[in-house]
Amino acid sequence: MSQADRIYNFSAGPSVLPLPVLEQAAAEMTNYRGCGMSVTEMSHRSKVYIDIFEETKSDLKRLMKIPDTHEVLFIQGGATLQFSAVPMNLIGKTGKADYAVTGNFSDLAMKEAKKYGEISIACSSEDRNHMYIPSQKDIRVSDDASYFYYCSNNTIYGTEWKYTPETGDVPIVCDMSSNILSVPVDVSKFGVIFAGAQKNMGPAGVAVVIIDKALAGSELAFTPKLLSYQVMIDSDSMHNTPPCYTIYMLGLVLKWLDKQGGVEGMEKIKSEKAQILYDMLDDSKMFIGHADKAARSDMNITFRTKSEELDAKFVKEATNAGFDNLKGHRIVGGMRASIYNAMPIEGVQALAKFMREFEANSI
Amino acid sequence: MSQADRIYNFSAGPSVLPLPVLEQAAAEMTNYRGCGMSVTEMSHRSKVYIDIFEETKSDLKRLMKIPDTHEVLFIQGGATLQFSAVPMNLIGKTGKADYAVTGNFSDLAMKEAKKYGEISIACSSEDRNHMYIPSQKDIRVSDDASYFYYCSNNTIYGTEWKYTPETGDVPIVCDMSSNILSVPVDVSKFGVIFAGAQKNMGPAGVAVVIIDKALAGSELAFTPKLLSYQVMIDSDSMHNTPPCYTIYMLGLVLKWLDKQGGVEGMEKIKSEKAQILYDMLDDSKMFIGHADKAARSDMNITFRTKSEELDAKFVKEATNAGFDNLKGHRIVGGMRASIYNAMPIEGVQALAKFMREFEANSI
Repeated sequence: MSQADRIYNFSAGPSVLPLPVLEQAAAEMTNYRGCGMSVTEMSHRSKVYIDIFEETKSDLKRLMKIPDTHEVLFIQGGATLQFSAVPMNLIGKTGKADYAVTGNFSDLAMKEAKKYGEISIACSSEDRNHMYIPSQKDIRVSDDASYFYYCSNNTIYGTEWKYTPETGDVPIVCDMSSNILSVPVDVSKFGVIFAGAQKNMGPAGVAVVIIDKALAGSELAFTPKLLSYQVMIDSDSMHNTPPCYTIYMLGLVLKWLDKQGGVEGMEKIKSEKAQILYDMLDDSKMFIGHADKAARSDMNITFRTKSEELDAKFVKEATNAGFDNLKGHRIVGGMRASIYNAMPIEGVQALAKFMREFEANSI
Repeated sequence: MSQADRIYNFSAGPSVLPLPVLEQAAAEMTNYRGCGMSVTEMSHRSKVYIDIFEETKSDLKRLMKIPDTHEVLFIQGGATLQFSAVPMNLIGKTGKADYAVTGNFSDLAMKEAKKYGEISIACSSEDRNHMYIPSQKDIRVSDDASYFYYCSNNTIYGTEWKYTPETGDVPIVCDMSSNILSVPVDVSKFGVIFAGAQKNMGPAGVAVVIIDKALAGSELAFTPKLLSYQVMIDSDSMHNTPPCYTIYMLGLVLKWLDKQGGVEGMEKIKSEKAQILYDMLDDSKMFIGHADKAARSDMNITFRTKSEELDAKFVKEATNAGFDNLKGHRIVGGMRASIYNAMPIEGVQALAKFMREFEANSI
């Protein structure tokens, strides 16, 4: 298999995975390393599977430099179920929480949290269609908030937080679904980090939750047992059968990432990749970026032309040329190129070239 | 790949999958049918994935003869999260529900439901270590129960309900995780059927929920959005990103099952397979079955010898001979052979032969 047989997939999630990871998964599908069965068939309590599970966990801890104060959990339901789990587990402390609303998913998380307590909007970028990220001075953190919540990269709008907010003694909860493992993070600053796997880590079907263990154990009484962080910490994410195969594939992605220079290596490459497209946008007389320059995401590049008709023509021709899933989210319209860790730089270069040619041909 | 390279895997779940399914998954891993990407990489909103999803759903509807009154949902979190979702969605009608406790999982479900309402034990087999299934006359259904709950096959104890309880106007909720698709079921008799996939349907990471649509829409106020049956019905299980790859593999298993004669074909084969092992137990002077004969499960055959030492010797020698995961659950001890749909009859025959030889060699 070579890239020649595959298209460039700019999907926002589920999204492109490294080809060597897929090839290894294919090769191991019927018989994992001589054990006589597939990872899909393994008892989650078997030694062979526990080894896969623990190695995945320890690789993530090493790659993200996760301190011993924090535990790594694998929980089903994606980031969306964490929108409920976070307040159910954490809001009991004071009954209140603060949310930074900088896009669709932080807005959904904020609305879900209202079921469980009193929510304050610490800041919002809604006034300018989420084109920007508020600065530190515009964030109002309540002294009695159980936690402060934000989403570090807004997949739909193509904006990204370039700093970690200062919140005093209030623990920070961060949805890092769409930029985890693309940039080094000081995990000790966070109470909870969570991320759906299907953007930068693996197939859909699991969320990684990294939690300061001191915050667990005071969930609301009606919290489903499987959503209790304490239950999941105590059972090493195996209160019930975990999504074993998805975790295995996530582990393969981590091994691949390690070979690319780890998170530091990814940071360098992702900046290069994003710069190629942002340079193209800045040079263009046809394509217009959605996000303010200072807030531009290195993972999701959102742009449009001057008309919906031309947008549609571009998407259609791009698809025919082997650049798939470039249509923007219906909330924003236009186009979006998601260039997560697994998108090869060649794909980004080819897209930029295609955009230049499309523009030249349209004049 | 032939069976010669693989062991016989008697795991209770995750468990054996049909070899042709694994081979097809391997062949399609880097490039699904010429579309240029893996199923693991597909946007869940893309046409190519929606086709996979809808075909899987319609195959399940056809194979189980699911009437139009009922909807099929794919929800993350396995059967365990349904232990919470069922009461959250259904108990609001009267605040009460009845549970039949015939094993470990119905007991766990009953305890979880107590968080959400008043629970009555409709019947229990705890008095004789869950070796039997109560008969209809021993079931006490409350007139004002929002639903009656039972688990149709008790994986750990190796017992199986041979009839569908009569409950009058009270809707029946059934956990069919470990015998779904092994025997025809009149779905119209059930309010909710749910099943974790990792026993008879596919890899771990998704639960199938089949719900009478008339029962949805009155969930408790604090129900997480992703656990609302109504939200999942309205979004066709795509309120958020579903576990796409796990659903695809479940779909491959359904295609395989169809070729084996569907559920009716499975029923015939599973009875033959179970009879081979139960005949062996009945003939044996060494091995003792756990379940009463009338309650014997055709999916999980539980047995032991007269001593724990001999049990351990058997498990060790069986493992060395290529029969894996025969150790019984710690709650029951002894041995357990799980022979779900995907276990070839040759595996069961070989195990019975091995047991006879082990017994002969031990005298």
